[in-house]
Amino acid sequence: MERKFHQELEKLKQDLLRMASLVEHAIAGSVKSLVERDTDLAYRVIEGDHEIDTMEMKIDEQCLRLLALRQPMAVDLRFITSAMKIITDLERMGDQAVNIANRAISLNREPLLKPLIDIPRMARLAQSMVKDSLDAFVNQDPDLALSVCQRDDEVDHLNDQVFRELLIFMLQDPSTISRALQLIFFGHQIERIADHSTNIAESVIFMVKAQVIKHRGGQKKGYKKHREVE
Amino acid sequence: MERKFHQELEKLKQDLLRMASLVEHAIAGSVKSLVERDTDLAYRVIEGDHEIDTMEMKIDEQCLRLLALRQPMAVDLRFITSAMKIITDLERMGDQAVNIANRAISLNREPLLKPLIDIPRMARLAQSMVKDSLDAFVNQDPDLALSVCQRDDEVDHLNDQVFRELLIFMLQDPSTISRALQLIFFGHQIERIADHSTNIAESVIFMVKAQVIKHRGGQKKGYKKHREVE
Repeated sequence: MERKFHQELEKLKQDLLRMASLVEHAIAGSVKSLVERDTDLAYRVIEGDHEIDTMEMKIDEQCLRLLALRQPMAVDLRFITSAMKIITDLERMGDQAVNIANRAISLNREPLLKPLIDIPRMARLAQSMVKDSLDAFVNQDPDLALSVCQRDDEVDHLNDQVFRELLIFMLQDPSTISRALQLIFFGHQIERIADHSTNIAESVIFMVKAQVIKHRGGQKKGYKKHREVE
Repeated sequence: MERKFHQELEKLKQDLLRMASLVEHAIAGSVKSLVERDTDLAYRVIEGDHEIDTMEMKIDEQCLRLLALRQPMAVDLRFITSAMKIITDLERMGDQAVNIANRAISLNREPLLKPLIDIPRMARLAQSMVKDSLDAFVNQDPDLALSVCQRDDEVDHLNDQVFRELLIFMLQDPSTISRALQLIFFGHQIERIADHSTNIAESVIFMVKAQVIKHRGGQKKGYKKHREVE
């Protein structure tokens, strides 16, 4: 039974990593569909979300079965309940990729406001955060988790930069307002994806170090100023 | 033991409702601090978030203890694991109230762009959704949960309205752009709060009816038949 349980936990870890890789892929695809004005790709991202949703349900069921049949204790119990929360974050990141893809479809019909540089850079950071937060979780690696939290600050910084630049566009030429707002929206969606990864990374640090990094720093997160579009 | 377990579950329900009421209160306070330009109130909302964070940790521990000591099965197991997910949503709603309060503090220093009507209306709807989604959860009431999901459509509609109105302001008078963006931000935060409540309501419907309303809409049409709850 002990060995079987160990195998089941290993299977759970593999499934979590596979779900994370689907989400990473969806983020990359949604942003590529925007940057390269590839509407077909946007539709493929939207269709692919179904698989992410299915994995969420499958893993949730897997966790419930482990809790019911194996009645794990201590570290294993905490690992399984955390996994159940993490898949919710992953599923919502998938939804955000769908949001980006949906907007890309409509934006691809209009002329491009400006070449996109910071938004793809934010997206690449967010992708790396998804991957590393899950790696940190399955390997219980608090250092990797901390590096994810730090990258969140970079994403916030880039997002502020995107926002300020677009604000100048809007002020100088009001005909750009509508398209600029769309781009602000993209920055915001990627920031939310980064937030979800940060939530996962924070829970890893909490689990491993039994430190509540999550709620430190008074009313706000200690290592970041704030988490939304400025 | 059976009776003790029943009492513990009852206590969990009461704590969940108390946490939801703190979140409702925080949302109401943050929006009031904006509408009535009450910066002191905004600071109180920010300070109060600590209590919400503490409750999240306390309830999470309570759930882990129930899982470890009582080894619940079937419906009780699903109730406890769902509670663990729900408190994450509640905690994040609290963070969104803090975001609103923080922005209100800075916006209260500038002249008001326009009297706020739709934003407080959205906030009231969102508050009612927080309350009812939690009531639906502890009483396992799918009809109430469904009404929460329907209110989410209203919130989205109001948010679109707020957005269109502010877009007109910006186009007509670019000097309003910066303040209008702030108000768009508030609408967006309230929409996110409503989304969290909808997530809770959807999980209630799933639990009770074993239907996945969650993954409907967009490319994912219709209610999906879902696995039986273990």
